[in-house]
Amino acid sequence: MRFSVWAPGRERVGLRIDHDEHPMHAAGGGWWVADAGSAGHGTDYAFTLDGGEPRPDPRSAWQPAGVHGPSKVYDHSRFEWTDRGWTGRALPGSVIYELHVGTFTPEGTFDSALRRLDHLVDLGVDFVEVMPVNALDAPRNWGYDGVLWSAVTENYGGPDAFKRFVDGCHRRGLAVLLDVVHNHLGPSGAYLDEFGPYFAGRNIWGPSLNLDGPGSDEVRRFVIDNALGWLRDFHLDGLRLDAVHALVDHRATHLLEELAVEAEALAAHLRRPLSLIAESDLNDPRLVKARESGGHGLTAQWNDDLHHCLHTALTGERQGYYADFGALTDLARTLREVFFHTGSTSTFRGRAHGRPVDVHNTPAHRFVVSLQNHDQIGNRAAGDRLPASLPPGLLACGAALLLCSPYTPMLFMGEEWGASTPFQFFSYFPDPQLRETIRQGRYDEFAEHGWDRSAVPDPNDEATFERSKLRWDELSGEPHARLLRCYRDLIALRRARPELTDPWLERLGVDVDEAQRWLLLDRGAVKLVVNLGDRSVTVPVTGEVSAVLLAWAPPQLLEHGVEVPAQSFAVLAV
Amino acid sequence: MRFSVWAPGRERVGLRIDHDEHPMHAAGGGWWVADAGSAGHGTDYAFTLDGGEPRPDPRSAWQPAGVHGPSKVYDHSRFEWTDRGWTGRALPGSVIYELHVGTFTPEGTFDSALRRLDHLVDLGVDFVEVMPVNALDAPRNWGYDGVLWSAVTENYGGPDAFKRFVDGCHRRGLAVLLDVVHNHLGPSGAYLDEFGPYFAGRNIWGPSLNLDGPGSDEVRRFVIDNALGWLRDFHLDGLRLDAVHALVDHRATHLLEELAVEAEALAAHLRRPLSLIAESDLNDPRLVKARESGGHGLTAQWNDDLHHCLHTALTGERQGYYADFGALTDLARTLREVFFHTGSTSTFRGRAHGRPVDVHNTPAHRFVVSLQNHDQIGNRAAGDRLPASLPPGLLACGAALLLCSPYTPMLFMGEEWGASTPFQFFSYFPDPQLRETIRQGRYDEFAEHGWDRSAVPDPNDEATFERSKLRWDELSGEPHARLLRCYRDLIALRRARPELTDPWLERLGVDVDEAQRWLLLDRGAVKLVVNLGDRSVTVPVTGEVSAVLLAWAPPQLLEHGVEVPAQSFAVLAV
Repeated sequence: MRFSVWAPGRERVGLRIDHDEHPMHAAGGGWWVADAGSAGHGTDYAFTLDGGEPRPDPRSAWQPAGVHGPSKVYDHSRFEWTDRGWTGRALPGSVIYELHVGTFTPEGTFDSALRRLDHLVDLGVDFVEVMPVNALDAPRNWGYDGVLWSAVTENYGGPDAFKRFVDGCHRRGLAVLLDVVHNHLGPSGAYLDEFGPYFAGRNIWGPSLNLDGPGSDEVRRFVIDNALGWLRDFHLDGLRLDAVHALVDHRATHLLEELAVEAEALAAHLRRPLSLIAESDLNDPRLVKARESGGHGLTAQWNDDLHHCLHTALTGERQGYYADFGALTDLARTLREVFFHTGSTSTFRGRAHGRPVDVHNTPAHRFVVSLQNHDQIGNRAAGDRLPASLPPGLLACGAALLLCSPYTPMLFMGEEWGASTPFQFFSYFPDPQLRETIRQGRYDEFAEHGWDRSAVPDPNDEATFERSKLRWDELSGEPHARLLRCYRDLIALRRARPELTDPWLERLGVDVDEAQRWLLLDRGAVKLVVNLGDRSVTVPVTGEVSAVLLAWAPPQLLEHGVEVPAQSFAVLAV
Repeated sequence: MRFSVWAPGRERVGLRIDHDEHPMHAAGGGWWVADAGSAGHGTDYAFTLDGGEPRPDPRSAWQPAGVHGPSKVYDHSRFEWTDRGWTGRALPGSVIYELHVGTFTPEGTFDSALRRLDHLVDLGVDFVEVMPVNALDAPRNWGYDGVLWSAVTENYGGPDAFKRFVDGCHRRGLAVLLDVVHNHLGPSGAYLDEFGPYFAGRNIWGPSLNLDGPGSDEVRRFVIDNALGWLRDFHLDGLRLDAVHALVDHRATHLLEELAVEAEALAAHLRRPLSLIAESDLNDPRLVKARESGGHGLTAQWNDDLHHCLHTALTGERQGYYADFGALTDLARTLREVFFHTGSTSTFRGRAHGRPVDVHNTPAHRFVVSLQNHDQIGNRAAGDRLPASLPPGLLACGAALLLCSPYTPMLFMGEEWGASTPFQFFSYFPDPQLRETIRQGRYDEFAEHGWDRSAVPDPNDEATFERSKLRWDELSGEPHARLLRCYRDLIALRRARPELTDPWLERLGVDVDEAQRWLLLDRGAVKLVVNLGDRSVTVPVTGEVSAVLLAWAPPQLLEHGVEVPAQSFAVLAV
């Protein structure tokens, strides 16, 4: 078996197996190689650099002893996949379900998550989006502090367990997306910089990557190989690329475009669609434009503007980055135009922001929209979900707007039953000093907005993690059961009626009444009327209503419109 | 049950059920409607126009009594599909297998074709492309003379049988493409022009469609509804659009782009990829360019230039449209650049032809390439396949070039075993005069090229049809069995090695020696060496050959190259 590692600036590199040191040989381009005849699946190994402490393999696939310990050889070909008939799932028309493995179930493992998949099948979602699972220096974490990007954390069961999870999803017709983080490394346990020029400074989360400086060819290869590895070796159907706005890359071909090129080649090899979905704060249509029109050619990008429009319309909140949002007319415009900021001033950013999307040629499914997601919940001081501040009727209105929109809807685990549990920010690093820094940072961040520290959970406290776990026992009680039925019915309706997944924004009509607080989403022969207000309203509807397809509270059909009770919605066929 | 028909210029339109005439009512826009309470699945019906003879429904889904007889109500919801787990198949990386249902098996039906699917699964193809199946006025025909575009011909078993076939394909992991003809109607049995302004003159095959004159909005809707109907109601995975260069459409939005827009919306509804593949003689990259870069946004188009390059390289033929082709250097250039004619003079056309493809941004899988197909075989005087003029070694060389290329390969039924049976031009219309015109036309066409009529099979003769049927008994004999193994191995290798499906032409290297008649296809770590000549050659190969992955005859590895026996190929790993 041949071991290899990139360590361009080193004089001596060793391969440590058990307590034996095998010298490695320079193979050109900064690469070192060594053969070890007896090594195989399960062999522990590490690298030494110029006689220093043994370090895990930057490309390690298995770290059962933690991120500081040795790597373990992992043979991907040993796993017995049962998803042979799986031909992939394309994103258009799909609904995504985001989950955090550690808090999705009480046990917090892939195997326990597997046992909950029937719930997702019944709900009707198409993709499961798994928050990051790479190895990190913490027994509990959201996942964004990974330091060994190709190893699956043992917190959730390690690589075999992840494969069992994906295999189980595929057998049930569920596709799987993985959230991957390439814009920084976690603040603890990252040894990459000892191997080579991986880093280029720091961003707010940790060391950031050298994507365009000297040596960056190999660093980019490292990132791309990581991305492709998940798709190929773990049979994933796509990746959610964390915070791509934090990738610093001034090369002529952006890393994201390079990734799209390689993913297209891999998709042809695997003969199934692979989706690349960027989380982006740029409001830049280039990310999802075709490469032949100068874009990066990604499959989709998140659209937080629409989240903010929906959130403010439902809650009335205006704090922080919600400052510019809130008007129903802006929600209507954003629904039609994708972005709220298409060049206008963003108060929160203190500058002009965004660029218009060519709605004539850009299908709406290239934008992922959520009513709630891990960030929008977890980045609140108390990690409280919408049900903490909204009555069920308004939750249902939000769900209807999301699931009757032409965008790719994403739900956050538990949203479908209005989970009472929060999703709070939690992590736990071995270093007390680092823990204190994180705790204090959290307090300081919210103190700026007037929050007392007693209202902000301690991220290091195990109770914060435990509190964030879903309570599956609440599903059968009200108002959860009713909301869950509503989500199921909305998703089923979205599957049944082609109008609802029609991706062409030119065919979307939106009408609002700011004062009466109603919206009408016109999807051709299907129309959604939403009343966010406290009293029933009469919404004018053109065309003869032939059926009420779905409603939170029974509407009354009138001659030229429909009377919608307070805080409720109705989907009509005309 | 409501019946409707578009007949804009008529004063009176009637619905004929049994012998009863139900008056239809003008519903605006040239549409007529009538309700018939007792009608349902299986009811015979026809329309009368201003008191004339009853005519079948232009949108008929079922014509068991032939194209002149009444239509039969067909309820698509009655069929019990078993392909629920089918999530579609994307084209990239796939291999297509074209077949003609009438001659694929001795019985010539969908049900008998179904019994041969395991052969296709063993072969390793991904898509079955079915030559046209729409209703026409002939008991035997290639399929391009359809007149009721949404009805499945009874020759093959009608609509239920087609659904059984598609369902059976999906259960075996095979996707299905249907060849659809929208550029003309068959010369017999087309009543469309009695209903409305469907026609705008004639092309060489029959009446052509009014796509941009007055009334063409509804004609385009007719075409698009037909296309979408196959994808939705018959669960098809894509369409092969016949001879799109014969669509006359000068509107600002071309019919093909309109179709791509609608197919994208339907794909989102069905949540599976839908492929639109144009047969085009235009050498115009616009067809497959993204809409956002000014293209029509189709999935792929046929690339006949590459067929001609391969055919002439293998056979040495230069007649007719092969005049400009033949040099190996041109084959090499065309492999790298997609089209042979990118603005150069086409001798056959007597004008400059084509436009370059932006190879930097256009994946090669957007071009479908074949060594043989129904046209390239059947449009020869005697409908003879390559094995009639080539030894097995050269057939294998052709297969290797096709299946190791980055394009989307398409095989024609029987090609995989070097079928000895021809695929001749056959048809049979009831009208003796029309039959004579077709026979004479065929003789005249080939007389121009010096063919005596005795060498040109009579298209009306049943023996011509029978002669074109595959002989499955020859599979086990040589040289067929060896060639079949070679095709299977090539397809398996194409699946196994990611280099072979890499769609990026920038990474493709081609080297040739015109005098010694060898080619080297450089696919990165995989290299194909082909010797088309009569004596063994030594081909220089850069890099150390680590394995012979596949070969027609054992090559000899030398220090800086490989010695390839006459008329053979070898695929090498370096």
